[in-house]
Amino acid sequence: MTQLKAYKQPVTRKAVKVKKLFIAGVGAVGDTLLKQVSRYNGGQNLRVLGVCNTRHVHWYDHSQKEYLLNDLLRGPSIDWEDIISKLASYEEKSVIFVDTTGSQEVASLYLKLLKNKIHVVTPSKLANTQSQEIFDLLHYTAAENGVDFLYETNVGAGLPIIYPIKNLIFTGDKILELSGVVSGTMTFLFSELEKGNSFSEAVIKARALGYAEPDPRDDLSGEDVARKFLILARICGLQIERNQLEVESLIPKELQEVDSATFLEKLHRFDSYWMDKLLQANQKGETLRYSGSLKNGKIKVGIESVPKASALGQLSGTNNLICIKSRRYYDQPLIIQGPGAGKEVTAAGVLADILTIP
Amino acid sequence: MTQLKAYKQPVTRKAVKVKKLFIAGVGAVGDTLLKQVSRYNGGQNLRVLGVCNTRHVHWYDHSQKEYLLNDLLRGPSIDWEDIISKLASYEEKSVIFVDTTGSQEVASLYLKLLKNKIHVVTPSKLANTQSQEIFDLLHYTAAENGVDFLYETNVGAGLPIIYPIKNLIFTGDKILELSGVVSGTMTFLFSELEKGNSFSEAVIKARALGYAEPDPRDDLSGEDVARKFLILARICGLQIERNQLEVESLIPKELQEVDSATFLEKLHRFDSYWMDKLLQANQKGETLRYSGSLKNGKIKVGIESVPKASALGQLSGTNNLICIKSRRYYDQPLIIQGPGAGKEVTAAGVLADILTIP
Repeated sequence: MTQLKAYKQPVTRKAVKVKKLFIAGVGAVGDTLLKQVSRYNGGQNLRVLGVCNTRHVHWYDHSQKEYLLNDLLRGPSIDWEDIISKLASYEEKSVIFVDTTGSQEVASLYLKLLKNKIHVVTPSKLANTQSQEIFDLLHYTAAENGVDFLYETNVGAGLPIIYPIKNLIFTGDKILELSGVVSGTMTFLFSELEKGNSFSEAVIKARALGYAEPDPRDDLSGEDVARKFLILARICGLQIERNQLEVESLIPKELQEVDSATFLEKLHRFDSYWMDKLLQANQKGETLRYSGSLKNGKIKVGIESVPKASALGQLSGTNNLICIKSRRYYDQPLIIQGPGAGKEVTAAGVLADILTIP
Repeated sequence: MTQLKAYKQPVTRKAVKVKKLFIAGVGAVGDTLLKQVSRYNGGQNLRVLGVCNTRHVHWYDHSQKEYLLNDLLRGPSIDWEDIISKLASYEEKSVIFVDTTGSQEVASLYLKLLKNKIHVVTPSKLANTQSQEIFDLLHYTAAENGVDFLYETNVGAGLPIIYPIKNLIFTGDKILELSGVVSGTMTFLFSELEKGNSFSEAVIKARALGYAEPDPRDDLSGEDVARKFLILARICGLQIERNQLEVESLIPKELQEVDSATFLEKLHRFDSYWMDKLLQANQKGETLRYSGSLKNGKIKVGIESVPKASALGQLSGTNNLICIKSRRYYDQPLIIQGPGAGKEVTAAGVLADILTIP
């Protein structure tokens, strides 16, 4: 038996051109992406043209190989007209606009970017969850102009979910049902509940660990999960608007309108409600999950009681699990599981989208 | 609430050129692929130049949109030199050679095809499981010539396994461990055992249903699973040869050399051995699986006793399950589950590879 040799980098197709990136947003994901691009040593030629936050833009020198954020604050003020015309001045289809901002203003630029033959890659769900008309328009515009509009990280962060679904459809399969847990925050909350912690404790802990938003109602409303299922349904070819979804909110009515501090202070009053609900589930050998489903053209999102021994019931941490049933994968569905949040995996998912573009 | 509109085909990037396919092998997968290509109505332009089996070749007319096999038997005899020079006469990088044969002779043509700037897509594991040197040579040659060598269906048929692993690596992650069940045949056998059927009954049933090879020893040897892990390890950058794997064969020593009929006739003598082994596992709340793992640079393939309540223990049908642990996905690994065999899903996986090529 010969000695095992060291690991080495696998080979990719030789790059024929330089991919030029512009990264909008330098928060957790944007900053991590910039580091991943700086460290990238695969077969493609990536170059970052510039970065911006909501106020400033910074253009890197042509020679730069490592992209830092130091100079951003000293950069000129944001002028989107100027940025887009600068990006459009490069060779057609060679520039990729990466939006990590979560800003509605930036999402509204996609159409113009695509028309200018600039690819768009984003983890932001904003553009895809407006009207069906805008969703269609963005996709048609990308197709018409021969550029890509990619958003694998809209659901499950770095997990392969959107790409496999599109692959099934493009190869002639038909998606019949989608179901599962697509919120790491929700998995965390209900795992904590299962461990014996109260609902309010779980929410406060999720917030402290950065799993939940500063105002946890943004997670508890179910809006995040609803939007993810809306996007998946549209990818499957369903024509559907946000107001057609059945969404269960976990925010008590009495706490819907109060300020964030009051919400956190008073949430404990509803702990016994959740404890009772969990006990009822436990008595049947079940536990609680916040899940979603697309079935017969309808999307439902809310609390579900599932067998503890099931794959959904065994989820822990910030794991997601999505179950895809199609004509080809019906009795034995395609199941993808893994952590559905985190800056490293999200940035890597964005980078994978970037590398996919020819 | 407005009415839901009908499903419609999602949009793909507009094709800039015609992808020309040559399909070697017209068995279950090749034939299904031909039908899927005939029905394909996505955004790309696919054209089948020709098909062949081990004896004959048939070239389709330029105008054909539906590809039938009727004319194959009347086609000229196979002449690989002639076929390759014909394929090489088309525009560089526009031809895709699809090998669904499982023939060593055809696998040995890949290098020449790649050198002629012809892409290669295959479900066959033959080329990738020869020496590490050949594996490297094929991948370097593809990279040097700017063409693709794709084989997503080498492991898990249509399941997304190789692509996500490559994505992790290309975006700077490092794969630390791979483990799971990558043989639908083996899942079927041990599910049958769990149901109370004897080992020999399970093998005969698997053979009758087409899950096992005509000589089931080709499955029971563990060679299929070993080869899949060998390929995955090499993709992860490990330099490793087939003889460095630790592989447990399920073929009783006494039945290794006998003919196929004798093997099937005498296999029942070992039923009590398997029943005892399963009972021992059951007493610990466990069940048996034939699994593999890549850990610390070593591959082990064989029988494993796993908790019944675990994801592996709950596998049924012909399901595969692969667990990917990387730097980014460690405490919460990336898990992919689904049927890992079948002509429809395998052909669709091959077609997805074809559609990936720019």
